Amino acid sequence: MATEKKRVVSGMRTTGKLHLGHFHGVLTNWLEFQQQYDCFFFAADWHALTSEFQHPEIVSESIQDLFLDWLSVGIDPEKVTLFIQSKIKEHAELHLLLSMITPLSWLLRNPTFKDSQGEADNKNDDLATYGFLGYPVLQAADIIIYRSHLVPIGVDQLPHVELTREITRRFNYLYGEVFPVPKPILTEVPKLMGLDGRKMSKSYNNAIYLADDEETIRKKVSQMVTDIQRARRKDPGDPEVCNLFPLHPLYSSAAEVERIKRECPRAEIGCVECKKILMQNLLTKLAPVREKRCYYEEHPDLLREIIENGNDRARKIAMATMEQVRDHMKI
Amino acid sequence: MATEKKRVVSGMRTTGKLHLGHFHGVLTNWLEFQQQYDCFFFAADWHALTSEFQHPEIVSESIQDLFLDWLSVGIDPEKVTLFIQSKIKEHAELHLLLSMITPLSWLLRNPTFKDSQGEADNKNDDLATYGFLGYPVLQAADIIIYRSHLVPIGVDQLPHVELTREITRRFNYLYGEVFPVPKPILTEVPKLMGLDGRKMSKSYNNAIYLADDEETIRKKVSQMVTDIQRARRKDPGDPEVCNLFPLHPLYSSAAEVERIKRECPRAEIGCVECKKILMQNLLTKLAPVREKRCYYEEHPDLLREIIENGNDRARKIAMATMEQVRDHMKI
Repeated sequence: MATEKKRVVSGMRTTGKLHLGHFHGVLTNWLEFQQQYDCFFFAADWHALTSEFQHPEIVSESIQDLFLDWLSVGIDPEKVTLFIQSKIKEHAELHLLLSMITPLSWLLRNPTFKDSQGEADNKNDDLATYGFLGYPVLQAADIIIYRSHLVPIGVDQLPHVELTREITRRFNYLYGEVFPVPKPILTEVPKLMGLDGRKMSKSYNNAIYLADDEETIRKKVSQMVTDIQRARRKDPGDPEVCNLFPLHPLYSSAAEVERIKRECPRAEIGCVECKKILMQNLLTKLAPVREKRCYYEEHPDLLREIIENGNDRARKIAMATMEQVRDHMKI
Repeated sequence: MATEKKRVVSGMRTTGKLHLGHFHGVLTNWLEFQQQYDCFFFAADWHALTSEFQHPEIVSESIQDLFLDWLSVGIDPEKVTLFIQSKIKEHAELHLLLSMITPLSWLLRNPTFKDSQGEADNKNDDLATYGFLGYPVLQAADIIIYRSHLVPIGVDQLPHVELTREITRRFNYLYGEVFPVPKPILTEVPKLMGLDGRKMSKSYNNAIYLADDEETIRKKVSQMVTDIQRARRKDPGDPEVCNLFPLHPLYSSAAEVERIKRECPRAEIGCVECKKILMQNLLTKLAPVREKRCYYEEHPDLLREIIENGNDRARKIAMATMEQVRDHMKI
């Protein structure tokens, strides 16, 4: 059965715990994909090193958190293969071989690289490394080593997948048809604001994490910036510009959303009450997530087994692919 | 005992059989090194791919030839570790990790890379790849993964070893002292001319190969360009500008060399006779080389065993190093 399904490969960098932005941007898609595709989801610790090489401890510390986050929201290790990138050395081997056939100009044109270099005074020196330039080469290796058909991405990552496709075509052209050329699945990423009105992000320290406990969530929601124009309770508010409102459709009922949309602009409902509604719904929705996390935290052997099984499955496929690669490259 | 010796790592690209230029430029040094150092000599097939990726069959076909060449000149598998780069996947892993900490500017400044890019109309597009730019990163990985103390090189490769040293220092600075910083051993490379008066090189098709049979060597020597100013037998010649003469000190006796130096400028000896002397001495010196090659060709199991033993020894050390690397990088 599984072999007839199309294969999807996707990874997340291990640079910290996941927050609601990740949940709605990536994990809800993964939950759908695992129903219909043969999914390979991996902790991209080598990729994380491109930015975190100066303090790599965060990279390894985040691996366990990442798996807990995935499992807690319902990613099902019976249905998908979960693994750690650095445990599959074949990624590094294929990366090296692909590096020989990847024109430098393709990488120098990559918008992510160009943006990071910026103007001289705005340049991010940490990202001016050989490895960061080659990020898309490693990404191509990650994807095609499992002969993936589909790669879920946000629109900003389209140039990376296009590079993967070009590198794949070039390999097939030079050495014969070894790899399917993977296609992107464009996923919608709802823009989730953080506590302070900026995009929810670890680096802004404004995020609600999947692993946050009830107390922390209550505190964070109550501190959230809303409509900054609404200074007093009796002022009318505007859900359209409110920082908190976008969370309501994700967690509150249609009736609640309608009520807020109607009453906020008339100052019939205040921010405190509006937050309480969100808080309650958020806690209700996250309760089973937290419960599941607790379960895995209390069963570290099970977690270890899931990761090891996933690594083994991934490694087997990667090794078989590399045999074919070496065969075609006559190396 | 062996552990007290300093370690030397050196590789040769697998892009064809070895000729006298390689013998006098590299192998005579290796023969000395194996007496005093703990040597690791490897067939650099991944490196060969940087230039041969369009016809990689030459890369794998050359591996066996390379080992035969080494063994035939007296490289002793009991004394040194002989192995194939691509069989030690840990090189690819370390290469990937080093890529994260290697500033792009270091590689863009590398003279070998700059020269290959040349002017727009003179540009070698095959070498404008990500892998070719990263050649020194792979080279650094090759060397330090065995904790080498010394790297034998010709003066033109000094910038590469300097890069290895810089990358090593940067690793040690970021993650702790894992690697000794290797030092270059500058080796003298006698400039050997080919049959046609240009530098001896496979690509000029003007080389005398270690594997050439007697008949071929006779033919090649008799066809060699000598002093192009000496058109007739009775014209005086000049050993200083003669293309063939530099081979005499390598193969002929001091008396013979003196005689030619004296008689050639007086037209007392002709090119035909001079060539005969060289031919005879060359054949005498190469006879045991050819004999040894025959022996290994007739014992393919022995050759296979030598390579496998070498691979195993190298892999064991590389794996141990990588464990320490991962430990220090906390990955």
